Amino acid sequence: MVTLAVDAMGGDIGPQITVPAVLDALRWQQDLRVLLFGDEPAIAALLGGHSHDRLVVCHSEQAVKMDDAPSVALRSKKKSSMALMLQAVKEGRADGCVSGGNTGALMALSRFILKTSESIDRPAIISALPREDGGHTFILDLGANVGSDSEQLYQFAIMGQAVAQVMDGRHHPKVALLNIGTEEVKGNDQVRAASELFRADDSLNYVGFVEGSDLFRNKADVVVCDGFVGNVALKTIEGLARFIMAETKREFARSWWSRILSVLFVPFWLRVEERINPSAYNGAVLVGLQGVVVKSHGDADKQEFCQAILAARNYVDKNLPAKIESLIS
Amino acid sequence: MVTLAVDAMGGDIGPQITVPAVLDALRWQQDLRVLLFGDEPAIAALLGGHSHDRLVVCHSEQAVKMDDAPSVALRSKKKSSMALMLQAVKEGRADGCVSGGNTGALMALSRFILKTSESIDRPAIISALPREDGGHTFILDLGANVGSDSEQLYQFAIMGQAVAQVMDGRHHPKVALLNIGTEEVKGNDQVRAASELFRADDSLNYVGFVEGSDLFRNKADVVVCDGFVGNVALKTIEGLARFIMAETKREFARSWWSRILSVLFVPFWLRVEERINPSAYNGAVLVGLQGVVVKSHGDADKQEFCQAILAARNYVDKNLPAKIESLIS
Repeated sequence: MVTLAVDAMGGDIGPQITVPAVLDALRWQQDLRVLLFGDEPAIAALLGGHSHDRLVVCHSEQAVKMDDAPSVALRSKKKSSMALMLQAVKEGRADGCVSGGNTGALMALSRFILKTSESIDRPAIISALPREDGGHTFILDLGANVGSDSEQLYQFAIMGQAVAQVMDGRHHPKVALLNIGTEEVKGNDQVRAASELFRADDSLNYVGFVEGSDLFRNKADVVVCDGFVGNVALKTIEGLARFIMAETKREFARSWWSRILSVLFVPFWLRVEERINPSAYNGAVLVGLQGVVVKSHGDADKQEFCQAILAARNYVDKNLPAKIESLIS
Repeated sequence: MVTLAVDAMGGDIGPQITVPAVLDALRWQQDLRVLLFGDEPAIAALLGGHSHDRLVVCHSEQAVKMDDAPSVALRSKKKSSMALMLQAVKEGRADGCVSGGNTGALMALSRFILKTSESIDRPAIISALPREDGGHTFILDLGANVGSDSEQLYQFAIMGQAVAQVMDGRHHPKVALLNIGTEEVKGNDQVRAASELFRADDSLNYVGFVEGSDLFRNKADVVVCDGFVGNVALKTIEGLARFIMAETKREFARSWWSRILSVLFVPFWLRVEERINPSAYNGAVLVGLQGVVVKSHGDADKQEFCQAILAARNYVDKNLPAKIESLIS
């Protein structure tokens, strides 16, 4: 039995999304228990009076707002659903946790409550992207840190390498730095300095700079970048994938002939969609912490939030934080 | 008659791509003349002894390499095809120019030879992205400047606004800043400080922060960002679009049944591809210079490089640099 703590109040919408998503996850996984943190009356209303033997609602009076600064969350949101959820992981009552709330606050509270792994200064957010060879590329940081210096980028590389080792069983994953060109002279000072650090570490299978267009090619298993850059890249990917899915749908709704055709076409397109649909990739993990913390998108729908819960379960099963720590030390 | 100067040696491949692309452009546009700068024997070999009355080959002994630092290009590549091409624009022998060469060198040589417009410190690279409402969003900077401060971002906004006005006839284009969240507290110091500057200027129709996923929605007509971030976003978009096109092709090549179906499907998919294919968007323009300078991708194929030449022609026809200068002053 795995127990996950879930922040019911996180995300742009909150309980209306998170509660049904939790119920779905519990239905899919019979050996999953959930501690659901949030406003008890709001959650109870959504549960419609039904009780669930693997769901425990834990009332919290506060919620972290999407525009709360991390310092505000640290100072005055210690009774929030997000903080209480992390506390449950800290105390061993839950094996991992999931929130779709404010990233900056989640990062700050996670560091304060769970603490970082030894020799890691700041956690990073990592996720996987699909790749043309059928595999995937891990990319970090996706928004936990802005303005990362070369030393931070180096720590991201170490953590990314460990994630690829643990999750994919790759012994020497190829690690690259995201840049605006592959030549040595390209980029900014941080990236060029990080490249020197990467090259100097023989334990790292460093393959040099890659560009945005290389993310979908089999050039690297782990791509390292600053959180601002990674967050923009990730959200751009999601935006374009949704745009293309919508354009395709629209094209097939244009005439009676196209609508008939689309019936034949759907099974093929669904296989493409399955690989590019951002929903399938929801649930990035904050690595470098002493515990599994999964960040869902703020605007995730029910299916996507459920996906983030299943992702958290997967990281718990792989015992990710302990394995990263042992690989790093 | 419009005369364009073209750098035959630019790009990852050089004359094998640029020469056929120029011939295609001349075939498409009967009122186009091209001055083609590069290694004369190499170009002559590709022309196969044929002469063309609207094509003048101008020999250059040097070429800028893709890994030349901008300082190297400025100091020792004054006789390069890229420098001579810019010189032709400066002296009025050409109305605009196109290169697929080293971006940093093109930027440095353009500033040195053509000079920036009055009140503009540094040029920026701007291009258009497709959008779900059928329109497009201009985005800048795409890689000419890394580590832009708030004042530079503000100048990008002014230039981007002018481009949207000139190219799309929009009187009050919506201008936004690319960030990792839409709340005021999000992002880095440069972006937050730029937001203050944007807001303080009443002539700017500033709509606040947008995220990567908003690029394809009708949230802004002009999106401003640092060149590192913009370059990664643009190349990520290109990479994903190519990945999806390849996945779709592969899915339809899987069986005899899918191959039969694909014949019916192709006309619909081509209409989607037309909107997302990066080839159709090749040819970003360096704005803020006293002349039309178009940057093609280094890895453009013949069709894409031809597209960049046609884009340059379009900017010349609209008299972009002079209009931007008059709008800014």
